[in-house]
Amino acid sequence: MQISPLLENLIESLRVLPGVGPKSAQRMAYHLLQRNRAGGINLAKAVEEAMTHIDHCELCRTFTEEKVCNICKNPRRQANGQLCVVETPADIQAVEQTGQFSGRYFVLMGHLSPLDGIGPREIGLDVLQQRLESESFYEIILATNPTIEGDATANYIAEMCLPYNIKVTRIAHGIPVGGELEMVDGTTLSHSFVGRRDLNL
Amino acid sequence: MQISPLLENLIESLRVLPGVGPKSAQRMAYHLLQRNRAGGINLAKAVEEAMTHIDHCELCRTFTEEKVCNICKNPRRQANGQLCVVETPADIQAVEQTGQFSGRYFVLMGHLSPLDGIGPREIGLDVLQQRLESESFYEIILATNPTIEGDATANYIAEMCLPYNIKVTRIAHGIPVGGELEMVDGTTLSHSFVGRRDLNL
Ligand SMILES: [Zn+2]
Ligand SMILES: [Zn+2]
Repeated sequence: MQISPLLENLIESLRVLPGVGPKSAQRMAYHLLQRNRAGGINLAKAVEEAMTHIDHCELCRTFTEEKVCNICKNPRRQANGQLCVVETPADIQAVEQTGQFSGRYFVLMGHLSPLDGIGPREIGLDVLQQRLESESFYEIILATNPTIEGDATANYIAEMCLPYNIKVTRIAHGIPVGGELEMVDGTTLSHSFVGRRDLNL
Repeated sequence: MQISPLLENLIESLRVLPGVGPKSAQRMAYHLLQRNRAGGINLAKAVEEAMTHIDHCELCRTFTEEKVCNICKNPRRQANGQLCVVETPADIQAVEQTGQFSGRYFVLMGHLSPLDGIGPREIGLDVLQQRLESESFYEIILATNPTIEGDATANYIAEMCLPYNIKVTRIAHGIPVGGELEMVDGTTLSHSFVGRRDLNL
């Protein structure tokens, strides 16, 4: 006997969230209904607006509701000739918090993974190539995760940079192998920037 | 530097969900944006509709978008003179799944907790009293959690039933002390119904 179709639907819908199983979806639904309807209404609006208006920055591919994000638009950032290539928008957050970097970013939204059908186009390397053609960067800092896939992706991009005579570096020092960039503390991440090494082939 | 106010707002809003800290809120937001925008739109709609339209059943207090819920409206359920008192709507779900009970429910939406200012009115005992006055029940089954508060609440209701000469029972067998009703497996919960004991004072 279904008591409340709207409640069933709410519980079911909450399961699109990663890590949310049937029991926690139920707990979340009851919590919103019983303790925080205003928070629930806010949440609904925030999700709807984000899903509808957030797209990718045309230059760096990070999530933004503008055509070009605030970092790419910033003249001080543009004057700095460094481009930091990261896997995810969360990695930008992590690098920004170190205060060590004042260049711009390029977000792959993943890494190369040929077995899953994720090739250069899927991680936006055609867009990156266009930028290498049209802009003059002093240095490309490859800040993909220190995993097998992240390393392979970094190497692929390093080769891609060869014709352009740009300094290519790979962040290195301090990040535990197999770890994820966004989980690393700020100090470690700072070190990995300072200790970056040449990848010019 | 805030890159996307809508994204920041989404991450912040997700934290109204119980058990969701800043890191998992961020993971959820990126997941929706990158992998499941349709699921996100659905979620937004489901939350909005649930928050707006779900209220409490006038008779049993469970969550429903109707004035009176499907169980309270059911003539077969009405013909059965048993009323099962539970703490939460999730407990109804759990009892229904045992298939052992075909009466109606009364949902306290909590338990007595004088120190937190939760007295008889806050758990709807005035509504229950009115039902005891106006309907004739054969039996009140007290299925509050087997915790100190659940036991105290059960005893309070048992005393409340004294003037009405109704059989009052307390589910007992099989539920681990200190446990929560909705976490118990169906067999254990069935046993606790079969093994219920008189609480008539
Ligand atoms: Zn950008
Ligand atoms: Zn009802």
